[in-house]
Amino acid sequence: MWDEIWENCTLVTLDPMQPTPYGLIADGAIAVRDGKIAWIGRRSDLENPEGAPCRDGEGLYLTPGFIDCHTHLVYGGDRIDEFEKRQQGISYTEIAHAGGGILSTVRATREATEQQLFEQAVKRLDRLVRGGVTTLEIKSGYGLDVENELKTLRVIRELDRKFPQDIRATFLGAHALPPEFADDRQGYVDLICTDMLPRIARENLADAVDGFCEIIGFSAREMEQIFDAAKNFGFELKLHAEQLSDCHGTALAARYKALSADHLEYVTEEAVKAMAASDMTAVLLPGAFYFLREEKKPPVHLFHKYNVPIAIATDHNPGTSPALSLPLMMNMAAILFDLTPEDCLKGVTVNAAAALGLKDRGTLSVGAKADFALWEIDHPAAFACEFGMLQCRRMVKDGREVPVHWN
Amino acid sequence: MWDEIWENCTLVTLDPMQPTPYGLIADGAIAVRDGKIAWIGRRSDLENPEGAPCRDGEGLYLTPGFIDCHTHLVYGGDRIDEFEKRQQGISYTEIAHAGGGILSTVRATREATEQQLFEQAVKRLDRLVRGGVTTLEIKSGYGLDVENELKTLRVIRELDRKFPQDIRATFLGAHALPPEFADDRQGYVDLICTDMLPRIARENLADAVDGFCEIIGFSAREMEQIFDAAKNFGFELKLHAEQLSDCHGTALAARYKALSADHLEYVTEEAVKAMAASDMTAVLLPGAFYFLREEKKPPVHLFHKYNVPIAIATDHNPGTSPALSLPLMMNMAAILFDLTPEDCLKGVTVNAAAALGLKDRGTLSVGAKADFALWEIDHPAAFACEFGMLQCRRMVKDGREVPVHWN
Ligand SMILES: [Zn+2]
Ligand SMILES: [Zn+2]
Repeated sequence: MWDEIWENCTLVTLDPMQPTPYGLIADGAIAVRDGKIAWIGRRSDLENPEGAPCRDGEGLYLTPGFIDCHTHLVYGGDRIDEFEKRQQGISYTEIAHAGGGILSTVRATREATEQQLFEQAVKRLDRLVRGGVTTLEIKSGYGLDVENELKTLRVIRELDRKFPQDIRATFLGAHALPPEFADDRQGYVDLICTDMLPRIARENLADAVDGFCEIIGFSAREMEQIFDAAKNFGFELKLHAEQLSDCHGTALAARYKALSADHLEYVTEEAVKAMAASDMTAVLLPGAFYFLREEKKPPVHLFHKYNVPIAIATDHNPGTSPALSLPLMMNMAAILFDLTPEDCLKGVTVNAAAALGLKDRGTLSVGAKADFALWEIDHPAAFACEFGMLQCRRMVKDGREVPVHWN
Repeated sequence: MWDEIWENCTLVTLDPMQPTPYGLIADGAIAVRDGKIAWIGRRSDLENPEGAPCRDGEGLYLTPGFIDCHTHLVYGGDRIDEFEKRQQGISYTEIAHAGGGILSTVRATREATEQQLFEQAVKRLDRLVRGGVTTLEIKSGYGLDVENELKTLRVIRELDRKFPQDIRATFLGAHALPPEFADDRQGYVDLICTDMLPRIARENLADAVDGFCEIIGFSAREMEQIFDAAKNFGFELKLHAEQLSDCHGTALAARYKALSADHLEYVTEEAVKAMAASDMTAVLLPGAFYFLREEKKPPVHLFHKYNVPIAIATDHNPGTSPALSLPLMMNMAAILFDLTPEDCLKGVTVNAAAALGLKDRGTLSVGAKADFALWEIDHPAAFACEFGMLQCRRMVKDGREVPVHWN
């Protein structure tokens, strides 16, 4: 009746039905069948009449596999030179206006072959997975023309096929205005809506559509046109909103029932109310906040007040968040945004699943995917407290043990 | 004539005699003999008439082994509960006054056996070493009585014997006032000077003596008595100074020709001048600054103005810096203290060696120890730019390849 049983481990279920903090079950056991959790509880309550094989959890902590719900992992080159400039005091906005920033990564991404993009992403994925990641999202957005956006999305799909991790693809054509449309904003928005989106839908290359709603990105009005087109094709919606200023992106995303609004440093109470009414998730990205030395924090108290779930992600990208560890993001969410250790854990599991529209994972509970990470820690708050080199010891994806790293 | 030759790697020498940034040598080679660097330069300039065996550096970047010059790695228990309290807004000073803080770790350390302290430290050491560490310093200071300070120092010496890393031991009896001397500060200072120091010297259990000079620690006057006694026994001196307030510790340390003053957020220009006159190193600890959410940064411009070398360390400890990655500390020194990527690298190599009084390591140059870390990066500034899960791929200690991790 069961394929196997994991025992001798402390379960961090994060299941709200469990009465303990973190939904903790000491000396727990999980029975797995067909890649899903079939039974969960205390080991002493488990009956195993058919003698399903037992796996030894070695006394480790077992959490749901972590979910990085916001990354830009596929791109060409790096931005180390830009970082050296930034250390000399030049701002991100200035660098962007001078043709650096995103556009330098666009050039490198256009020049790279699919194979090169794949190989560079694998190195980054290897580091991310060590941090317990079994599901992640990757956005396009450094191609900015039909050919190169599709090339990027094909690389993301190929990564999903080649690795045990589940990888969700998000189309972020509205990431920056490409140089060839510098004097024709509307022309580029039209290209997204009438050329890119239909082809991406036809070839099933993306699960969601996103945009960078910002003074240096796209306006809420432009995003509205893109969201209208995306909805027609049945895509889920997400939005980079209110990171550097209040551009009213969050309210727009709420009106369109987007899954999440991401960053949110400048979001207003009105917009948070709208998020709650649309069952949206707030995705906080402390790595970008830290790397850009921002000072205005996202209003965590408002998300709590209106019961908006908070997810935490790396936002991995070469220019504003070269971060490759979800455990470190949990620590930064605690230190920089004052989240509790339990909220940090929910942020990379159950709430991150919600930010991707995935209802089959994020807690340890019957029916959920058997996606686990096993950790040599002494307390579930260790993720939020410690920083540096916290790696999972073992990983289970869809019920099977998989390598933690391959490099 | 040579034991072996490392080739096919980019050398980050950090040798001021090299004319390039970072002392970089592209396509370099290093000849090793008797655990030391016997020749270094471009591969094409190397002659190898006696046919010494060649090791393939696989195109990786090769740096000097990193040096963590300030850690408190040996202690019992953890302080996760305290962290959860801190997330509720209680300050470090309040926790210390309420008998928590350092004293809770003192209790756990006193209760632990040598074997238990050793095993807990090994887990932390494993994570630290992945970050390229070939030399580190560990301080006592959670025993605070004769028996338990000696116990801690013996564990540190045992770690040094059992692992390839060189581990320097520092006696930090003046870390906190133990509860049994709560009403007798002078009695404890006398105990350090007349009982602890002679025994530690006799059993050769420490290389240096340190203190926590702070309102909640020991006054400059008390440290003066301890430094006088320590000097008599020939110990090197170090001091935790000016972390939370200006207690004039740095000037005292300079008067006693200490190797380093550490933290230094509140140091004055006068005291920095005194550091320069005494050839001291400024050890910056961005992990503690970050974890305690401090806002007053150490005056990096003054260290530059007076040519005081800057070292960077983890300050690993359970209460104020549960950090276990020197690459992450480099990133935090860049982001939080505005250091350049090259200064970050010097901070964990040549300047960290100076902070420990070690003249035989810290650069790749003829005569230096053959202590190397090999990295899969594309630019030496990657250490300062990226954050999360940056691990060295291979490690060489005293000319021999050793494991990067054992866990
Ligand atoms: Zn993003
Ligand atoms: Zn310290």
